[in-house]
Amino acid sequence: MTQIVASYLSDEWWRPDAATDAAVVRDASTGEEVARISAAGADIAGALEHARTVGQRSLSTMTFHQRALLLKQFAQALTERKAELYELSKHAGATQRDAMIDVDGGIGVLFTYSSKGRRELPNASVIVDGPVEVLSKDGSFLGRHIYTRLPGVAVQINAFNFPVWGALEKFAPAFLAGVPTLVKPATPTAYLAEAWVRILVESGLLPAGSLQLLSGSAHDLLDHLRLGDLIGFTGSASTAERLRAHPSVQTGGVRFTVETDSINASVLGPDAEPGTPEFEAYVKQLMVELTSKTGQKCTAIRRAIVPEASVDAVVEALRSAIESRVVIGDPHHESVTMGPLVSTEQRDDVLRQVAALESAGGLVLVGSTDAPPVVHADGTVAPAPEGAFVAPILVGFGHDAPDAVHEVEAFGPVASLLPYSTLDEAARLVDRGGGSLVTSVATNDPAVAVQLLSHIGAYNGRVLFLNRDNARTSTGHGSPVPHLVHGGPGRAGGGEELGGIRAVLHHMQRTAVQGSPEMLTALTGVWHEGAPARHDVHPFRKSLAELRLGDQFASEPRSVTLDDIETFAHFTGDTFYAHMDEAAASANPFFPGRVAHGYLLVSWAAGLFVDPDPGPVLANYGLENLRFMTPVSPGDEIRVVLTAKQITPRETEDYGEVRWDAVIRNQRDETVATYDVLTLVAKEHAAVATA
Amino acid sequence: MTQIVASYLSDEWWRPDAATDAAVVRDASTGEEVARISAAGADIAGALEHARTVGQRSLSTMTFHQRALLLKQFAQALTERKAELYELSKHAGATQRDAMIDVDGGIGVLFTYSSKGRRELPNASVIVDGPVEVLSKDGSFLGRHIYTRLPGVAVQINAFNFPVWGALEKFAPAFLAGVPTLVKPATPTAYLAEAWVRILVESGLLPAGSLQLLSGSAHDLLDHLRLGDLIGFTGSASTAERLRAHPSVQTGGVRFTVETDSINASVLGPDAEPGTPEFEAYVKQLMVELTSKTGQKCTAIRRAIVPEASVDAVVEALRSAIESRVVIGDPHHESVTMGPLVSTEQRDDVLRQVAALESAGGLVLVGSTDAPPVVHADGTVAPAPEGAFVAPILVGFGHDAPDAVHEVEAFGPVASLLPYSTLDEAARLVDRGGGSLVTSVATNDPAVAVQLLSHIGAYNGRVLFLNRDNARTSTGHGSPVPHLVHGGPGRAGGGEELGGIRAVLHHMQRTAVQGSPEMLTALTGVWHEGAPARHDVHPFRKSLAELRLGDQFASEPRSVTLDDIETFAHFTGDTFYAHMDEAAASANPFFPGRVAHGYLLVSWAAGLFVDPDPGPVLANYGLENLRFMTPVSPGDEIRVVLTAKQITPRETEDYGEVRWDAVIRNQRDETVATYDVLTLVAKEHAAVATA
Repeated sequence: MTQIVASYLSDEWWRPDAATDAAVVRDASTGEEVARISAAGADIAGALEHARTVGQRSLSTMTFHQRALLLKQFAQALTERKAELYELSKHAGATQRDAMIDVDGGIGVLFTYSSKGRRELPNASVIVDGPVEVLSKDGSFLGRHIYTRLPGVAVQINAFNFPVWGALEKFAPAFLAGVPTLVKPATPTAYLAEAWVRILVESGLLPAGSLQLLSGSAHDLLDHLRLGDLIGFTGSASTAERLRAHPSVQTGGVRFTVETDSINASVLGPDAEPGTPEFEAYVKQLMVELTSKTGQKCTAIRRAIVPEASVDAVVEALRSAIESRVVIGDPHHESVTMGPLVSTEQRDDVLRQVAALESAGGLVLVGSTDAPPVVHADGTVAPAPEGAFVAPILVGFGHDAPDAVHEVEAFGPVASLLPYSTLDEAARLVDRGGGSLVTSVATNDPAVAVQLLSHIGAYNGRVLFLNRDNARTSTGHGSPVPHLVHGGPGRAGGGEELGGIRAVLHHMQRTAVQGSPEMLTALTGVWHEGAPARHDVHPFRKSLAELRLGDQFASEPRSVTLDDIETFAHFTGDTFYAHMDEAAASANPFFPGRVAHGYLLVSWAAGLFVDPDPGPVLANYGLENLRFMTPVSPGDEIRVVLTAKQITPRETEDYGEVRWDAVIRNQRDETVATYDVLTLVAKEHAAVATA
Repeated sequence: MTQIVASYLSDEWWRPDAATDAAVVRDASTGEEVARISAAGADIAGALEHARTVGQRSLSTMTFHQRALLLKQFAQALTERKAELYELSKHAGATQRDAMIDVDGGIGVLFTYSSKGRRELPNASVIVDGPVEVLSKDGSFLGRHIYTRLPGVAVQINAFNFPVWGALEKFAPAFLAGVPTLVKPATPTAYLAEAWVRILVESGLLPAGSLQLLSGSAHDLLDHLRLGDLIGFTGSASTAERLRAHPSVQTGGVRFTVETDSINASVLGPDAEPGTPEFEAYVKQLMVELTSKTGQKCTAIRRAIVPEASVDAVVEALRSAIESRVVIGDPHHESVTMGPLVSTEQRDDVLRQVAALESAGGLVLVGSTDAPPVVHADGTVAPAPEGAFVAPILVGFGHDAPDAVHEVEAFGPVASLLPYSTLDEAARLVDRGGGSLVTSVATNDPAVAVQLLSHIGAYNGRVLFLNRDNARTSTGHGSPVPHLVHGGPGRAGGGEELGGIRAVLHHMQRTAVQGSPEMLTALTGVWHEGAPARHDVHPFRKSLAELRLGDQFASEPRSVTLDDIETFAHFTGDTFYAHMDEAAASANPFFPGRVAHGYLLVSWAAGLFVDPDPGPVLANYGLENLRFMTPVSPGDEIRVVLTAKQITPRETEDYGEVRWDAVIRNQRDETVATYDVLTLVAKEHAAVATA
């Protein structure tokens, strides 16, 4: 008898003392016992409280950048030991390629969030969202949105098909936000979840309470959740429905997001006729989506929607691709390209759904529901009734296909084929899926893309347009990328909170904050105009350690002459008439006559505020949000005020970024231009190594 | 007998033939019948389908800017006739000031969305969200998020207290998004909803099917909703709970957002002792929130949380403020500053809740539950048992106040007072409300503000910090502004989809779109690097009518000499050592030696790409996202490529905005700098009037 898979609760490994009710997990190819799963008697309430106290506290001591750097280290720790995960994955029916999707995909999520977190978030604890809203005429009352992290625990309830990637995709944004996670894996692959959690625990990198694992069912888990906690659910629509109805979700304020399998479509464009690169790319993608992970992907293609005239060509090309490339069998043998389903229960369910499609009028065009002969671990080829094997199957329908096509999901290597006559019909067929994670479209015609998206956009979380330009570089219909939303409306669960920085924000509360400029500066870590400013030494002489928000430099005035404008025009070559020709400039609706170049003004402003000698300010690496508000005529004076607006030390360098608020005004105190100057500043004086 | 309030369905006014079951609405002060409400027999399914077909179609013909301009015209139409709405509001117990909150507040929402829509959204039909995600090394496969509008109808189910503002706050973002609205007002003030809808209908400005009104109950309304539709509910938590459990919401994919009354708190900071401006501002705000709209605001202060030492001073100051300023009575008399509650049912409910607070241990410190003598319409002062009058009431509690304080809501001029000793205790008391629309804090200490927000942020949709700087300019604890989110977590309903452009996005689906640069350009209306570019005449010679995305200008190269750098340094005054001192520049980690000024590069780039003679390009009004990537040394060559990236005609001008993608490269084809140049360009040649 195999050991019970351990849970990791309150920073300790734990197994039930006795587990007569443990679920037995079997090898998908051979039926041999692999593991037993039970969490009977686990102290769930204690684990959740551990997350809310110890976990919240340990994560609160870090900034976004510090947590982002840990994610990178987690990724490295998993990379070092990923061979262990590949090996285990074979028991679940995953080929090496399948295991890479799960394992390397999951590691990739950690790397991506690590990088995005440091590039797109401040090195701070709160996130400022959107522009300042000036709510009083005199600027004394401002509004702004601030994200602060939720005080609870992120509970993830996962599906069996991606025990590594599916969990890490939720863990990364929660961790980055500063919210502890409790992972509840699906039984058939719980041993894989245990394996990656164990690698992270053994790395010694995990902050206390930041990650827990509950390896077994926990029927009362939701009873212990409350406002400030979140549930991220991946799995079947029916389970989602049951969980959503729980009082914690309905009235308790627990955030609940869902990503369920959907009846995803792939449309062959009317222009993508047989012989075009788009046709080839379409068929190849269809073959990959049918067989990758043996079709056990929530994003897999379930409905191939093709022009009526191309139906036969698609069937033929797909059959030939499968025959030439697909080898079904035990992933322990190297020749195998498609493994079994995860379990015989899953196999039986898939065959039931195929039968449902057939009884709704479908005809099996490619493949068969008969048990296929398969390659065993030792290389012999024979039927394997104890294994969960199913061959790739394409079920064909005519026009006016029944609802079943858009509702029945065979969660395996199975897709339906539907013909269409007009683009509108194709769009309607896509939309009848009732909301999908993804639809792909093979077309090289931008007009087809625009027309389709205007109809199907609202029904899809992701739409992929495949053409000759990206046939080789596309990451594929079935592959969510961590940069983009993974989720979709309606049947896909309605979740929009996986993928990108928005997934981080989902673990935080967006609050409108109103107050004086001084208060908003303190609350956001961003200087707001009107807040106190400090004038002592030139702020360019201050290291990051010395610089404070509000440190300010106000320049002397400088007069602009016609001669200056001409000098600048001839030096730069910018002889635009507004600078050179009084009559033409006066005829322009925006200028009173000849005016100074905008670039002259910002160049001069730099001359006015710069402190030339070597010091902590290392470089001006950019400029943002420049707006020219009032033209400057010969005879006008300009001066500039520069204020430290945001300070972002880099964790891995001995310098950081400083954003300066720059305002150029004229002698009438009118605002001439506003912008942000971006500089790199050393943490300490003379601390930065020379190149 | 009064007439039944009409519904406006499928672009026609409609009343039931017979309505024996009509609800009777009475004047809140006198009890006289004001209106009868019934929608018995209304064709709800037909109205919804009208919205989804006719309404969607008429809105689809307009861009965001065109719809935004209509919002402004709606606001003007309502402004012209707002006296009618003030007069009607008196029947509901609203004083002139109360009516202005509702009517002018609602008009203000339309103006704000009109302005924000034109300033922050493109003049197009889709919205691009976030940066380009480059998903393949060669840039042939990109990802981006696009919002497209939902194909359904926005159903709003409103509360009685803000029949104008509460409806317009939902209508404005829906309309701007391009989604038709069906308004379902609350019975007690349905005649006011009918009045503003009638003004808009009579203005002749409404696109067909864009606005409908259902003046009466409709128990099966939700049965007719489906994926692509939305419900925006404002009202009681119990009704919200019932609606949320409906299958259309639970499994049908209908978006459901809720804004419910919450037990909002107002904290007096430990520094805001009696005698400080913050103390005065706190008490004044408390008085206003108790009496404005007779306390019938979902955002009103229900819990005053004050330092133990200041309890008596707050009670005294509040009592004195109420005695000197509050005149209760029929709003038809000009002296009245606080009217009755909306109905006697509401009055009885408020008194029941006060009794509940008392039986939980509360003591009435200010006011009384006895019926107050009131000013009648004719100026006489006498009790009015037929009117819904209640005096302002403050109920006091000690430390360890019972749960009732945080749960019981008396939806009238009633608040509880709770003492605290430490800031942590104050924060815990705020959070015990279980999620609020708003908390206000009177403090002049930024450290207090930061500490409190870190604890209460996650429990609040809005937090207002009141101090001496904004005591006069604050829009107030109880006033949501259309720029900021109106909604809150937990008990406040969990809705975050009112306020700001995010409310517009709530009516759209965010879809990740993947494809080639050419496809993304077609789908987003924004040129993406790698998409085809066109070289014919200089793009600065093209009017908006002629210019196309991808029109490009590639300059000749220009060499940079040390002399150029010195000339620029001396002309601008920017003698930063990296440009002037070879040894010091070499010691800087980012520079190989002396380098050209970044401002020199962008100035020269302008000289390289500018077309100097008068033409359609009128002005360079700004620059964005400038990043310097590679330093330029003496002897290097630079050249610039300028590409039309986004074209935004202005609806009300004969010019528009063109965003140009600018890339400076050196002789090794390394990217030196990237940025966007912002210009104003005439719609036609010589079409812009001179100033």
